[in-house]
Amino acid sequence: MKIDSFFSNNIKEALKNNPPGEWMPELPEECIRLSSGYPDPALVPSQQIKEAVAKLIDEEQDLPLHYLGSPRIEVLKQQIQKRLHQRGMKVHERELLVTSGACQALDLIARVIIDEESVVVVEAPTYMEALEIFQNYTKQIINIPVDENGLQTNILEEVLKERTKKSLPLPSILYTIPTAQNPTGTTMDMERRKHLLKLASEYNFLILEDDAYGELSFGDSPTPLKAIDTEGRVLHVGSLSKVVAPGMRIGWIAGSEEFITAFAWFKKDLDHPFAQASVASYLVEIDFEERLNMLKEVYRKKCDTLINALQLYFPESVTWYMPSGGYFVWVHIPGLDSSELLERSLAKGVSFIPGEYFFLKPQDGTEFFRLSFCFEGQDEMVEGVQRLGQVITEYLNASLLE
Amino acid sequence: MKIDSFFSNNIKEALKNNPPGEWMPELPEECIRLSSGYPDPALVPSQQIKEAVAKLIDEEQDLPLHYLGSPRIEVLKQQIQKRLHQRGMKVHERELLVTSGACQALDLIARVIIDEESVVVVEAPTYMEALEIFQNYTKQIINIPVDENGLQTNILEEVLKERTKKSLPLPSILYTIPTAQNPTGTTMDMERRKHLLKLASEYNFLILEDDAYGELSFGDSPTPLKAIDTEGRVLHVGSLSKVVAPGMRIGWIAGSEEFITAFAWFKKDLDHPFAQASVASYLVEIDFEERLNMLKEVYRKKCDTLINALQLYFPESVTWYMPSGGYFVWVHIPGLDSSELLERSLAKGVSFIPGEYFFLKPQDGTEFFRLSFCFEGQDEMVEGVQRLGQVITEYLNASLLE
Repeated sequence: MKIDSFFSNNIKEALKNNPPGEWMPELPEECIRLSSGYPDPALVPSQQIKEAVAKLIDEEQDLPLHYLGSPRIEVLKQQIQKRLHQRGMKVHERELLVTSGACQALDLIARVIIDEESVVVVEAPTYMEALEIFQNYTKQIINIPVDENGLQTNILEEVLKERTKKSLPLPSILYTIPTAQNPTGTTMDMERRKHLLKLASEYNFLILEDDAYGELSFGDSPTPLKAIDTEGRVLHVGSLSKVVAPGMRIGWIAGSEEFITAFAWFKKDLDHPFAQASVASYLVEIDFEERLNMLKEVYRKKCDTLINALQLYFPESVTWYMPSGGYFVWVHIPGLDSSELLERSLAKGVSFIPGEYFFLKPQDGTEFFRLSFCFEGQDEMVEGVQRLGQVITEYLNASLLE
Repeated sequence: MKIDSFFSNNIKEALKNNPPGEWMPELPEECIRLSSGYPDPALVPSQQIKEAVAKLIDEEQDLPLHYLGSPRIEVLKQQIQKRLHQRGMKVHERELLVTSGACQALDLIARVIIDEESVVVVEAPTYMEALEIFQNYTKQIINIPVDENGLQTNILEEVLKERTKKSLPLPSILYTIPTAQNPTGTTMDMERRKHLLKLASEYNFLILEDDAYGELSFGDSPTPLKAIDTEGRVLHVGSLSKVVAPGMRIGWIAGSEEFITAFAWFKKDLDHPFAQASVASYLVEIDFEERLNMLKEVYRKKCDTLINALQLYFPESVTWYMPSGGYFVWVHIPGLDSSELLERSLAKGVSFIPGEYFFLKPQDGTEFFRLSFCFEGQDEMVEGVQRLGQVITEYLNASLLE
């Protein structure tokens, strides 16, 4: 029996285009994980969640263990609506769908909006998982570069004009992480946000706003695209993974009711009452603003520590963007082969994510890598950067000798 | 902005073919829910799950709250493997994918195997959610009737021969709930199981075995199709929803490694560490065989109660299959319009699910309805049947008068 003969045609195509791949090499046991996008273990509220579950079961007994019926499923939606509202997004309950994290949200949107005839715009670099998801639906993906002020909307405009002139198909959706972008850590400025919305209206495309780090800006929180969208073009995706805990798998899509109805229809894993009610039970017990302020303070300090260490231990030719928030620093070394560097770095017990994972064309990313200041402790980060600095110095010296 | 213009072509087609629909009418507050497919609230181990979560967090702290890293994620897989093994299915860890309930498993299989060119075979009647899922991918669905011994494989064989003769496209996958079927409660006998596998081999199709009630047979547990499949044609879907708690959202697919790799690749909600580790933490504390025996005893008693009440309170012309396990009794009344009956029944405070939901062509189901003996207590069930019996008697008398 030939198994792959049973795959449907678009799945065969997707598997050819984007095969289930090797992801990062295995990390050594004692590795300092500057690759990790996990929240700081000390900031994950495990005790509070334990208590929230106990309270939930004491008060609701079996209710959150059925398919439906826990009042806290609605409480979670209200808590999310409240957060969105505070950031200028007034979202009706029928305009909100709770998902299993932002990843499921992205996949659900792709499933409903994107097929092999669709053109999708992504940022370069961008979140690797999103790239993988879009490539499961279409091969027509356009890259637009990001700089220290986010997506370069002037380049986007040129590309759109050019495609119009040449009668090439225009994009139906653009994927952006406007605030504290993964992996660059940069934030789209307000002028570009407005420009992007104008282009979306003019060229009739949707904007998929991935706001995973939207509440983790070190400075003032920028206005989300959804808050200034007057036409219903923005599908706003959020998540509690970075501000509460990824293992709870709570994300959402906020968008026009007709979209949300369709997304809900094609979301076939149903609600997750135990997880959703547990998180609701946790959220009502805490002051979320206070928690956010604490998180931002800790992550900003950790970011400073990492940046100081980079300045101290990395050779002069290495540059990076100053993160505006989030979890990551994006590093550039002219002439680098970052996968080769990773191999040497792992041998010294430090990991990072090579740039190639964040680009549609992996070769665009070889001179870059992503470091994270979220997961490891201060001392480990400094130690990691020191080791990595040494590996880089040796690497660059060897390159010069070649 | 015209929202539905952004839906991809196959989604537009799916929404036209199978629009997000009205499901059951809203139930009155004080309704006796003979419609419910929820487990008996008294059998949902809420206290034990609360304790399992406390133990999990005490022992693992933040680990189950990250994307990965809880050792109990693997423990859950081992527990599932152990259950499968005890029923004759030796499944390697690479042949097993944990999903968010059986529904996600069905959708994932459909996503990878089925497109608009695919022909799918389903049982008539069958699980309504599965029908909905398949209709999201194809319009080419064939019905094969079920009787007291399960899927009528002789009719399937005739249909396959006929389609071959007429050069009509042959099915790539057949969906069956062989044990304690939803909604009929009947079980496919061994002769038909073997016949089905023979046909699958001869006509080269896959079998999607939905085993949600497979461990809830009142008699000896029948051998799963997967246990007698020598060619890797069976994708075996299971769930803890009916034997532990649906709100935990734990299901799985067991199948050949190449299939499982593809399903995992297109499953974009990632693992659910908190839910999966919590369930693992619960499972290692209990004797699962003992729990199953307890469940079967309680549900068998409740089934007897319901059947006795049907004999006592339903008119002579009403018939049903004797359930072989599971949660449901399938009732037949010649000449019935079961949606009309539901309306009258709700007015008297009793619900059931009209037969039309379980058929590809709703009109095939009007003479049937599904009653459940899982959710309500013994007294409520008897009271519900008594009320329903009266409604039916009045309905039949009125029909005769017309």
